[in-house]
Amino acid sequence: MNWSNGFIAVDWGTTNRRAYKLDASDSCAGEFSDGKGILSVPAGGFETAVGEIRQHFGELPLLLAGMVGSNRGWVEAPYVDCPAGLEELAKALVPAPDGSALVVPGVAYRNGRCDVMRGEEVQILGAAAAGEIPPDCLICHPGTHNKWTELEAGRIASIRTVMTGELFSLLKGKSILSELMQGESSPGPAFADGVKRSLSGAGLTSELFGARASVLLGRADPADTPSFISGLLIGEDVRVGLSGGSTRDRPVFVMGRPDLTRLYAAALSQAGVESSAVSGERAFIAGAAKIVELIR
Amino acid sequence: MNWSNGFIAVDWGTTNRRAYKLDASDSCAGEFSDGKGILSVPAGGFETAVGEIRQHFGELPLLLAGMVGSNRGWVEAPYVDCPAGLEELAKALVPAPDGSALVVPGVAYRNGRCDVMRGEEVQILGAAAAGEIPPDCLICHPGTHNKWTELEAGRIASIRTVMTGELFSLLKGKSILSELMQGESSPGPAFADGVKRSLSGAGLTSELFGARASVLLGRADPADTPSFISGLLIGEDVRVGLSGGSTRDRPVFVMGRPDLTRLYAAALSQAGVESSAVSGERAFIAGAAKIVELIR
Repeated sequence: MNWSNGFIAVDWGTTNRRAYKLDASDSCAGEFSDGKGILSVPAGGFETAVGEIRQHFGELPLLLAGMVGSNRGWVEAPYVDCPAGLEELAKALVPAPDGSALVVPGVAYRNGRCDVMRGEEVQILGAAAAGEIPPDCLICHPGTHNKWTELEAGRIASIRTVMTGELFSLLKGKSILSELMQGESSPGPAFADGVKRSLSGAGLTSELFGARASVLLGRADPADTPSFISGLLIGEDVRVGLSGGSTRDRPVFVMGRPDLTRLYAAALSQAGVESSAVSGERAFIAGAAKIVELIR
Repeated sequence: MNWSNGFIAVDWGTTNRRAYKLDASDSCAGEFSDGKGILSVPAGGFETAVGEIRQHFGELPLLLAGMVGSNRGWVEAPYVDCPAGLEELAKALVPAPDGSALVVPGVAYRNGRCDVMRGEEVQILGAAAAGEIPPDCLICHPGTHNKWTELEAGRIASIRTVMTGELFSLLKGKSILSELMQGESSPGPAFADGVKRSLSGAGLTSELFGARASVLLGRADPADTPSFISGLLIGEDVRVGLSGGSTRDRPVFVMGRPDLTRLYAAALSQAGVESSAVSGERAFIAGAAKIVELIR
């Protein structure tokens, strides 16, 4: 593979993918995204799925990150252990079966408890390489599974995943709370009330039912319930994320969709922690460029 | 309604119902149960649904408890506030539209947080009336929604609902953990490990993902995962249930299905609390008989 004329970087997740064309000077010359996550690619279908990307951007080598490197993806790229920096990722790239692409490994944390990530590592290490976040900080990465990542000396030192987004979806989709959760969540008083309860260590699995009981007993407005439950879940997430001893005095950065980052920023602020938002897309491009620089 | 020749008591929940025929001396002379919970009864269909019960047991008056008295049931029986005993329930019975039945109210707790129950109150107060539990104790009532109930001087003083069963079902049914949760749970070492983590205050929403990561990284046997996750959820439930300040030094009773009560008993024991199992069915019959005695 000749990487000197530019390449295509793909953040390929479970339910969607986002591809960027980088030119010879690593500037972004185009991007597209669609809902073709790895779960929608049939067995043996990755050559075709990659072909669609090349129809957009031409015959360039590909750098693929995210769940495409999992055991349900195109080719499994075994996890690199913490502490992991861009050098460790670059050394552990795995070629795709057809020789047209390299797949970025995920990162594993094993220290008493276990945790893993695939995809976020390129964004986080890219943000650090680009100077958008300092080499020592805590990153909060909201999504289906929020990842709290400790960066130490520019390398990923620990990971803690919290299933907040997935739990919210499960409860909203088909639970006794579903009806009460159909509206939008916003960081107002109801959200703050939920955050406060969870930060104080109230039991989430009990407070969730309390949200329903409060409506039944006329003590809460049903219109506030999506925000309150969102506050409970995100408050618990922040409580867990900040519980790592060494993270208290580090700057905190939130990376992700704006609708989520503002809720997390509000909850962090309530916990007495100021945070800054970082663009995950720009960070991904920076990380991919840095990895390719290391193998050119 | 003439209650002197016996009556029919029905514990009518969301997804099933259980009916008992009590003779003139309040002995159980027959019982049947089916899956006709209130959610399966169409609008205007309760007369017919009650008719099916009378086909089994004859033309006797009915005492109906549980979700049948909710706003989705036959007739709404407004909640009685804590502290609530059998006398308070008996005074707040609501006649069904056709005059053939009385509906037992649920119990509400409003004191900072809100909580409610419908159905368990008859079992709990019945067990106390029958002398199966003392007038001051803590009752754990596993099921879709576990209820922790503080009994004080024979009356329900507080309620705390924990959504353990429903969360377990949601995670088992359609989450990233589904595949790993298909086996049975048993109170062995993996269950104990999960309980230990939750009792120590580890964040449940993060530990759940850790269960998957441990399997991915080869640190846990997938066959142990249902028990481990069950331990995490029940351990958190027990942590929350025991967190009420005044409950620590009271005897604890577990009421419910044997497969669940043994898991809760194991988790309580791990928390240093001995518990006893109580039959919910016998308690329900005792409670229903006592309520009818109060209105005869």
